[in-house]
Amino acid sequence: MKCKTLKIAAIKEGTVIDHISTANTFRVVDLLNLKGSGNVVTVGINFESKKLGRKGVIKIGGRFLTKNEVDKIALIAPEANINIIKRYGVAKKFNVEIPDVVQGIIKCANPNCITNKELVKTKFHILGKNPLKVRCHYCERVAGRENIEPV
Amino acid sequence: MKCKTLKIAAIKEGTVIDHISTANTFRVVDLLNLKGSGNVVTVGINFESKKLGRKGVIKIGGRFLTKNEVDKIALIAPEANINIIKRYGVAKKFNVEIPDVVQGIIKCANPNCITNKELVKTKFHILGKNPLKVRCHYCERVAGRENIEPV
Repeated sequence: MKCKTLKIAAIKEGTVIDHISTANTFRVVDLLNLKGSGNVVTVGINFESKKLGRKGVIKIGGRFLTKNEVDKIALIAPEANINIIKRYGVAKKFNVEIPDVVQGIIKCANPNCITNKELVKTKFHILGKNPLKVRCHYCERVAGRENIEPV
Repeated sequence: MKCKTLKIAAIKEGTVIDHISTANTFRVVDLLNLKGSGNVVTVGINFESKKLGRKGVIKIGGRFLTKNEVDKIALIAPEANINIIKRYGVAKKFNVEIPDVVQGIIKCANPNCITNKELVKTKFHILGKNPLKVRCHYCERVAGRENIEPV
């Protein structure tokens, strides 16, 4: 092996999450439960990026994300973009976007909130996107990115 | 992008941990503290393997492992092999091997063991390698792979 590049199999169908900040990359891995996945998964960090300096990339063979999963990624890693791969090529590419209201995606940090006591789906209003600021619909507790945990 | 392979930059110098079982791959990532690493790291799971069916691979640019780190990997993922990369090529390749005695690598599962009470380096005698069985030098508690946690 003398050459300066390695060939690896491209994914035929699946998803590439690109331009994740290195610090958020393994949080996205956890969020999508990729560790126990049966799919071919590749995770890279500290790759060179013109936009971010350093970036992380996640490739998932044979899996497409739901709207709910993309919204979760937007909250954790708003800098990410998603490439949908079909027939070895990019069929669609888009930036993740934080919606105005998120339901059933993140937990409320207030232990006394009804969503932590009863079987009530969480609901948050997005007050600010950068930096992220959310308000619980039920108890009105306000939280930032550092207090946010996926359901 | 119409081709069926993608070119990625090979690492110039560093370490490739190959033939890890998929289930152990992210345990090795944690063990080597790669999530917070400043190095270029690539982790893959569920790659095809003739030997294991499916395998995991970890590539770490610009880092070489210590004897202690290789011994830790041997305890967690005894199936792994290590490739040392220099000038874009494999300079050395070897299988990890469980030593007969390990010091300062794993914790004793007995909460009353002196190694969990005082600043004493842990020490274990390896009773069996497959399946793994270890005995604490101090309290003589015997443990299997499922009870083993890195220090």
